[in-house]
Amino acid sequence: MTGTSPTETVGTGGTGGGGGLSRRRLFGMGAAGAAVVGAGAVAARALTNETPVAHAASSADPYPFYGAHQAGIVTPAQDRLHFIAFDVITDDRAELAALLQDWTAAAARMTQGKDAGALGAVGGVPEAPPEDTGEAQGLPASGLTLTVGFGPSLFDHRFGLAAKKPAALADLPRFPGEALIPGISGGDLCVQACAHDPQVAVHAVRNLARIGFGKVSVRYSQLGFGRTSSTSRAQATPRNLMGFKDGTHNLKAEDTALVRDHVWAGPGDGPAWMAGGSYLVTRKIRMQIETWDRTSLAEQEAIFGRDKGEGAPLTGKKEFDTPDFARKAADGAPVIAADAHVRLAHPDNVGVHILRRGYNFVDGSDGLGRLDAGLFFMAYQRDPRRQFTPLQLALSRSDALNEYIKHVSSGLFACPPGVQDAGDYWGRALLA
Amino acid sequence: MTGTSPTETVGTGGTGGGGGLSRRRLFGMGAAGAAVVGAGAVAARALTNETPVAHAASSADPYPFYGAHQAGIVTPAQDRLHFIAFDVITDDRAELAALLQDWTAAAARMTQGKDAGALGAVGGVPEAPPEDTGEAQGLPASGLTLTVGFGPSLFDHRFGLAAKKPAALADLPRFPGEALIPGISGGDLCVQACAHDPQVAVHAVRNLARIGFGKVSVRYSQLGFGRTSSTSRAQATPRNLMGFKDGTHNLKAEDTALVRDHVWAGPGDGPAWMAGGSYLVTRKIRMQIETWDRTSLAEQEAIFGRDKGEGAPLTGKKEFDTPDFARKAADGAPVIAADAHVRLAHPDNVGVHILRRGYNFVDGSDGLGRLDAGLFFMAYQRDPRRQFTPLQLALSRSDALNEYIKHVSSGLFACPPGVQDAGDYWGRALLA
Repeated sequence: MTGTSPTETVGTGGTGGGGGLSRRRLFGMGAAGAAVVGAGAVAARALTNETPVAHAASSADPYPFYGAHQAGIVTPAQDRLHFIAFDVITDDRAELAALLQDWTAAAARMTQGKDAGALGAVGGVPEAPPEDTGEAQGLPASGLTLTVGFGPSLFDHRFGLAAKKPAALADLPRFPGEALIPGISGGDLCVQACAHDPQVAVHAVRNLARIGFGKVSVRYSQLGFGRTSSTSRAQATPRNLMGFKDGTHNLKAEDTALVRDHVWAGPGDGPAWMAGGSYLVTRKIRMQIETWDRTSLAEQEAIFGRDKGEGAPLTGKKEFDTPDFARKAADGAPVIAADAHVRLAHPDNVGVHILRRGYNFVDGSDGLGRLDAGLFFMAYQRDPRRQFTPLQLALSRSDALNEYIKHVSSGLFACPPGVQDAGDYWGRALLA
Repeated sequence: MTGTSPTETVGTGGTGGGGGLSRRRLFGMGAAGAAVVGAGAVAARALTNETPVAHAASSADPYPFYGAHQAGIVTPAQDRLHFIAFDVITDDRAELAALLQDWTAAAARMTQGKDAGALGAVGGVPEAPPEDTGEAQGLPASGLTLTVGFGPSLFDHRFGLAAKKPAALADLPRFPGEALIPGISGGDLCVQACAHDPQVAVHAVRNLARIGFGKVSVRYSQLGFGRTSSTSRAQATPRNLMGFKDGTHNLKAEDTALVRDHVWAGPGDGPAWMAGGSYLVTRKIRMQIETWDRTSLAEQEAIFGRDKGEGAPLTGKKEFDTPDFARKAADGAPVIAADAHVRLAHPDNVGVHILRRGYNFVDGSDGLGRLDAGLFFMAYQRDPRRQFTPLQLALSRSDALNEYIKHVSSGLFACPPGVQDAGDYWGRALLA
């Protein structure tokens, strides 16, 4: 953890051009407006991303970039996502390390509402391509966080990293019913960009791809909206595309002890370079929207084990009422069915806590008259072997929801600890 | 035009359930919060969607649904889009008319922040599917507008509408360089949903699809973000994914005479049922993002004929400076090149005014290591034969931008006039 002001240190880590001016100050706003934004940045300054609830003063403001942990994990979930997975196409470890240095410098700038680099070319020479693609000019930081992860395939023969591969990064098992599409699964590297404005998230991902030209290739990319989980008690529980509140019992940033025990990799958990990091599992879950929409309300509620309006367990009245899994109806059947989602996923039953951070998606239609829509599930945890895997094995075997959903992609990434300061970079302890 | 309060009349057009309560009042907010929303709705009440600039009091508030023209055309462009095109799969004209009645009733409700129908089943019977899918519960109206259009194919043999087909709805010609994909082009019906919250836009489109089950099939669907045009002088000019300000000289709602002359179909223009309507052209324009990002700033600016930071014409200093197309540089060449986008598209040069209302899109990646991204162009006009077609013919032949873009889909729709009141419905004058 560092007490350094991110706003002050970012400049030294920049890739040139733009100085300390934000995009918004440079373009699009007068001096008065810029002063207001400046004040918001100052308010955020006292926090680092390790502070459990680093709420930005407004949805336009920045979150700190430097800290013991990467931002974008316990940060209150922003409303929009652009997730991208890359294949590394160089096999030169020094080139990979240089890329991560360049990415870190650009991320330190962009998360503070600045350009990735100079909008004009270096030194004002117009014959070079711009170092920022420009579409976020005039837009504020918008709560942008950028979170990087390393896939199992990064630890193959290419970069000599096999000995440093965490045991927790073992491939996930095959789960019953999954129908994974290889082209939208896996990846050597991933970046999760979350922001309140999709244009800001898209701009950040696109500039990292631009910086990586010749070193990485885009493997797949996913936009999402309407965060489907709260990661802070200050947030209302949002709804998934089945219309239900989702993740009522998600880990929250305020649960400090639970977050320590279930989200962050500890110093004794595996390789030292991952201490303070977290493991990300992604699952693209296609929903059979049209079939679901023709299912009765009673059946929908039985499947979730909650009522649809309030989100209360079928044995309670309010969303946060503790479900009574033992209670039986007059006919002797349990009120919350044996295969209800809330029974199979509830931490009290399965002893598993994960920090969910997923997003709804609609990717147009599927050519068969249906919307291509669902949930891009993302969850952070200390060790997938003890958290996501047993939970998903139970769900994939028994969950009544399975009739309406299909897992079509899967990703697993080791997200290293945070960047300490402008001299540090993502994965330095792994690669240096 | 009607002076009727939309808030009062909506209830009578509803499809049951929910009464006069908004989603937000029913769920997710206390009474105090609901009162604030109510006040916003009252502020919007005095306006109809014909008022040139019907700014909602906040981005959460509703726009009026009833009026001489459909909302979502001169309405200040909201930030998010879900566009959908349907094939009609019934050949029963009465069934088509009934669908449009049902859609209109649901749209009148949803645009005011209410459910499409009852969240529970009719009469509280839990054996029926809900009449609202639920994922917008707790979300405010969010400036939602729903705009419907009829494609040329609706006027084929199936519904006996051939004699009522407007001449302006003649198929667009083939344009040089286009590479249209049939599955994401055309459509019998379209709905443009615009809102400040993508979850609200998605909810609306999904519920119209649900209501249309068995009568329509989803042909294609497109999400967009970061409106690429201003339709009101109160809005700053946004940037497209090439990083340039786009649509500086777009028609604005405040240009009352220009809007009357160039956007709305007049009583003498064609069939009476289209008087007060407008013609929508959609074009999905894929951008070669990665190639563009490796192009020099000087070339990018020469292609647009504007500078990238300010958006000023290369002969001026400020965005709204009038371009001097005659000015020559020392070497005798025009400062704004003969093939620059601003020269070929500027209303002063081509005499064509259209109301652009497009959105940026990123549809993930293309499997070849590149982002699948670009512009979903939408433009409203009085007659495409005199507006979009000649403009696009000139652009497709000469525009320097063509090296970096490709038109991959095309749509043409006759958007009927507005719905007058709860007894009226979309297309009534065409179908009744």
